[in-house]
Amino acid sequence: MERIAIMFFLLCFKSLSGQDYKKILMPYPQACSFNASKYMVNENFTISVSGRPGQRIYGAATRMLMRLKGRTGLFITQQEVVQNAGTPASGLLIQVTRAANNILGVDESYHIIVASDMVKLNAETDIGAIRGLETILQLLQSTEGHYYLPGCIIDDAPRFPWRGLLIDVARHFMPVDVIERNIDGMAAVKMNVLHLHLTDDQGFRIECKAFPKLQELGSEGEYYSQEQIRDLLHYADDRGIRIVPEFDMPAHTTSWFAGYPELASASGPYPVEHRLGVMDPVMDPTRESTYTFIGGFLGEMAKLFPDEYMHIGGDENNGKQWDKNAAIRLFMQEHGIRSDNDLQAYFNRRLLTIAEKCGKKMIGWDEILQPGIPASAIIQSWRGSEGLAMAAKAGHPVILSSGYYIDLNFPASDHYLTDPLPDSLHLTTAQRKLILGGEATMWSEMVTRETIDSRIWPRTAAIAERLWSDASVNSVSDMYDKLDRISIQLEELGLTHEKNVDMFLRRLAGNDHVRALRTFIDALEPFKDYGLIDYAGYTTGSPFTKIVDAVRPDSRVAREFNTLVRNFTANTKDTVSERKIRQWLTLWKNNDALLKIAFKQYPAIQDVETLSWDLSVIAASGLEALDYIRLKKKPPALWRDRVERELKQASRPRGMTEIMVVTGIRKLAYL
Amino acid sequence: MERIAIMFFLLCFKSLSGQDYKKILMPYPQACSFNASKYMVNENFTISVSGRPGQRIYGAATRMLMRLKGRTGLFITQQEVVQNAGTPASGLLIQVTRAANNILGVDESYHIIVASDMVKLNAETDIGAIRGLETILQLLQSTEGHYYLPGCIIDDAPRFPWRGLLIDVARHFMPVDVIERNIDGMAAVKMNVLHLHLTDDQGFRIECKAFPKLQELGSEGEYYSQEQIRDLLHYADDRGIRIVPEFDMPAHTTSWFAGYPELASASGPYPVEHRLGVMDPVMDPTRESTYTFIGGFLGEMAKLFPDEYMHIGGDENNGKQWDKNAAIRLFMQEHGIRSDNDLQAYFNRRLLTIAEKCGKKMIGWDEILQPGIPASAIIQSWRGSEGLAMAAKAGHPVILSSGYYIDLNFPASDHYLTDPLPDSLHLTTAQRKLILGGEATMWSEMVTRETIDSRIWPRTAAIAERLWSDASVNSVSDMYDKLDRISIQLEELGLTHEKNVDMFLRRLAGNDHVRALRTFIDALEPFKDYGLIDYAGYTTGSPFTKIVDAVRPDSRVAREFNTLVRNFTANTKDTVSERKIRQWLTLWKNNDALLKIAFKQYPAIQDVETLSWDLSVIAASGLEALDYIRLKKKPPALWRDRVERELKQASRPRGMTEIMVVTGIRKLAYL
Repeated sequence: MERIAIMFFLLCFKSLSGQDYKKILMPYPQACSFNASKYMVNENFTISVSGRPGQRIYGAATRMLMRLKGRTGLFITQQEVVQNAGTPASGLLIQVTRAANNILGVDESYHIIVASDMVKLNAETDIGAIRGLETILQLLQSTEGHYYLPGCIIDDAPRFPWRGLLIDVARHFMPVDVIERNIDGMAAVKMNVLHLHLTDDQGFRIECKAFPKLQELGSEGEYYSQEQIRDLLHYADDRGIRIVPEFDMPAHTTSWFAGYPELASASGPYPVEHRLGVMDPVMDPTRESTYTFIGGFLGEMAKLFPDEYMHIGGDENNGKQWDKNAAIRLFMQEHGIRSDNDLQAYFNRRLLTIAEKCGKKMIGWDEILQPGIPASAIIQSWRGSEGLAMAAKAGHPVILSSGYYIDLNFPASDHYLTDPLPDSLHLTTAQRKLILGGEATMWSEMVTRETIDSRIWPRTAAIAERLWSDASVNSVSDMYDKLDRISIQLEELGLTHEKNVDMFLRRLAGNDHVRALRTFIDALEPFKDYGLIDYAGYTTGSPFTKIVDAVRPDSRVAREFNTLVRNFTANTKDTVSERKIRQWLTLWKNNDALLKIAFKQYPAIQDVETLSWDLSVIAASGLEALDYIRLKKKPPALWRDRVERELKQASRPRGMTEIMVVTGIRKLAYL
Repeated sequence: MERIAIMFFLLCFKSLSGQDYKKILMPYPQACSFNASKYMVNENFTISVSGRPGQRIYGAATRMLMRLKGRTGLFITQQEVVQNAGTPASGLLIQVTRAANNILGVDESYHIIVASDMVKLNAETDIGAIRGLETILQLLQSTEGHYYLPGCIIDDAPRFPWRGLLIDVARHFMPVDVIERNIDGMAAVKMNVLHLHLTDDQGFRIECKAFPKLQELGSEGEYYSQEQIRDLLHYADDRGIRIVPEFDMPAHTTSWFAGYPELASASGPYPVEHRLGVMDPVMDPTRESTYTFIGGFLGEMAKLFPDEYMHIGGDENNGKQWDKNAAIRLFMQEHGIRSDNDLQAYFNRRLLTIAEKCGKKMIGWDEILQPGIPASAIIQSWRGSEGLAMAAKAGHPVILSSGYYIDLNFPASDHYLTDPLPDSLHLTTAQRKLILGGEATMWSEMVTRETIDSRIWPRTAAIAERLWSDASVNSVSDMYDKLDRISIQLEELGLTHEKNVDMFLRRLAGNDHVRALRTFIDALEPFKDYGLIDYAGYTTGSPFTKIVDAVRPDSRVAREFNTLVRNFTANTKDTVSERKIRQWLTLWKNNDALLKIAFKQYPAIQDVETLSWDLSVIAASGLEALDYIRLKKKPPALWRDRVERELKQASRPRGMTEIMVVTGIRKLAYL
């Protein structure tokens, strides 16, 4: 019956090229064709549900209705989507075959037909339908006087079953509302796993009833109660998102030792760590009491978190405490354990037994890939595609995170072009099936609740598309177009990545300088890969409120400017690009003068004062370069030397930020 | 000893006029003198605590330290303020005599001395010290290359002991994080009572374990768990803020009846109300079972909320259900109860007994002022100063809310000039002592979690000053200057009143039109007093995302423009004002053209399209008026007629908003 309907529509409507609409869906569906019909959205719009869907879909449909009202301002009469409300003749009809059990590999497929008189969303499961609702919201268009959904037929399902976001709530704690709005953001781009990195040297962020000193002494008061976790689990499940908890062991555990120093491999006391980086403290894997403790703890957590997987970390043990501990050396000797690596493998095997006893499958970082770890353990690969291939070849399911380290401030395009299954991997079909997907990792050494959204969004939407859509969907320029649209849609979920920028500027320099500061910082990006430079003297208690924190990764302005320059240098007759380039350069050239007072008055922004000056200097030279090009005159060597010095000077990062239009201006100077 | 120190400083420093610093403190202290010295704030800044302060002050001081780092960007070494940390030689020394019991009338006084080598904050109680910490943060100044606190001596204490904010979480539910950030906002301006209006026709927002259908059927899933309430109470107490819960009875109770229709005076069923306004459903005061229920419910709530006061509402019973219920009529006859008013008085007397049994004092709205209500009951006056005087004359303590209805979008100046104790009241000294203070009331019929902050802040800071500072602190223009500063400081607490404006515009009309839309709407205000026009067809499920919701009350731009016009019309030689007026008028004149595309493409903003046109029309006429004035020519009658028509047209509210610069432009036209 459904197939006949689909064929009917395929016959009825002359399919448009769909070019206009191609850039509105992210992740882009597996199959999608647009036609000339339109479904008008007005006050009479209704949503109804049929089938045997369970409870999840009603809340999701009601939330979708509210977002639709929000965007359109339409006083749609329907207040909520409820069970057994009858089936209206028109509007959105959601048909769901069954309620899904929200586990790895759940059916997330859905089908949408938009025709002039109705919108149909069919899905095997309610979670599939929830994915489809997000697609429908993305379809919403407006034109003279009305809102509409473009006629289309969409057949969609994810490429990978594991599309995750890791949020590190240990280094900087993230309150419940931060997690909730990010769950909403994930759902908007069809991600389905929230990986909570709950414990680390800097904080133990979850209530444990069996060992309460874990949170009492290990969190400085900032942790989730078990009721909050249950609420979060419910919140995520309502959106078809699993929560996988991580309890990183045996290293990254200083905060455990604050309350229970006897777990450590050296004597305490262990105050909660404020510094950032890799620390020495590590659990003592030679004492039975360690495993008794872990068994009790994981047992309690296993009951709290319903997911079949549990992450035990296992990364970055520097082995120093083990090497210095005579009892541990002796234990190794007695048990024929030859290296720290082998000792950690021993520890992991013990952990695996505990996890199994708790009814959980284990996940760990690259480092757990050691002899004796059974193939059922998932490897989360953070050290590169070699590790990923090795794990798959050893028969382990794998999640890719290398390439998705969003905390390092690389552009979305880098992440977008990281395919979990590139042809270069040379895996067998069976091995390829072991690649479950990937996870963006939001480590929080350098972010707070105020900045985390701007480090996650919108770039993570590019990763979401990589993990959902076909590998052939890989146009970077299309991706950026979509990212601009999606970024604004994500705001309606409460995410602060757009709106907090001006807030930062107002706090640092009052209301009067926001516009000029914004002109300046929109050409900047935060310094990349700062993890490698040992966190530049930061601690968890440092101010994360400076210009570098206001500046967003992946500057849209720089991208646009550099594209204009590319177009213009390819064809110097492109006067449209030239005019726009001149506008930008003139704006920057004059901007530093507007900021003189601000830099004088507000010491908090002085670390980028010379950067603002450099931007104006190279912008002025960029204008001169354009004049030379226009006059078809070769600039004199002295000018070249001066400009080269200026560009070199402007390339120096300051205040942890860098000017991103140097490349474009250099191109002009060297044309 | 302290007095000697103060006198010493008074002698040492030649007191400056303090003019420069007068506009930085809000609420303005009772006594405050500035001098020429400066305390430099740098990375070595420390905070230490001495005395016997209890726990509260350490968290408060640590939060203050983080905000100081946030504003200054200084990498201050100190990570947190802890007990027994020793007393450093310099930095901020907090001395507290005792931990306060956070009840009505608690000592909130504090003393500050800022000298070049140290900052001292002394207070009898930790709550007084917490008030003082906010003053110190407001003192922070910056100038070339450094941050500092200006030398000063401050002696401060509140004028009224009850400085409250009511938040209605029933009409639109407000999640915990919304309440928390508003508690922080309250603390920043030294307010001390959060009045939670927890139940109303549209929602029952608190978990009741004895009668779980209250929240299960009465909240549509949106309510506070008791754990959340306990967390909130703790959060508020940490900031020296009491939480007074309101359970509005006998009317405003439809949501109670969703689960327990037997409480009502007419037979059900009672679905949760989505409409706004005064509803008929009311409790049946004639059945004993009603009081048994209320007794059980209030007993549970009395244990949950530690405050000595409990608010039982008592307002706006239209009596219709009582009049139609034969059993109730009979009961009245049998008990000699002659009117609905008397019946409600009977109900209130029963409630009072219950409240007393729970160990609570009762608060109610104006309407509870009936014979038989004992003098211990507090009257919250919402119907004007007559009611207030009447209550005080009857011996009741009184809280003023009339004049502080911030939901109605009146300007801050109106609230600011509403004194709870004007000389006109003619009360005895004893009666004057009964005026405990006041409460700003944030009713939530027309706000959501996205807009509530912009309806509360910054205007409520003006009410906070009215309730804390001396009556003589009443310069409206100073108040507005301070409001502009405070508004930005409030943002650091997560409040969204500034940053959500652009977010609304982006959602409605994308990224490209934000600047022009902002130019337009900054000259608008939301329509006032909409409660009186029956909520204009809104329900709780309507979209509160339109231009009217983005627009903020009390337009700063309009205020500035109208002031410029006032200056100029008083002295037409004031060319500085004239130039600025021309700049504004030119901006507005040209702005509508920039918005043509946006109005065409986005139906959601079309309700203000003609308003934008009208603004450009009257701006053009304003420029013509200036030309006539400049040329010393009387404009022809025809011109006057046309402009009058334009102004009249421009005065019509549309999309629930109105242009606030019509007055100024009219003044120019009629000069």
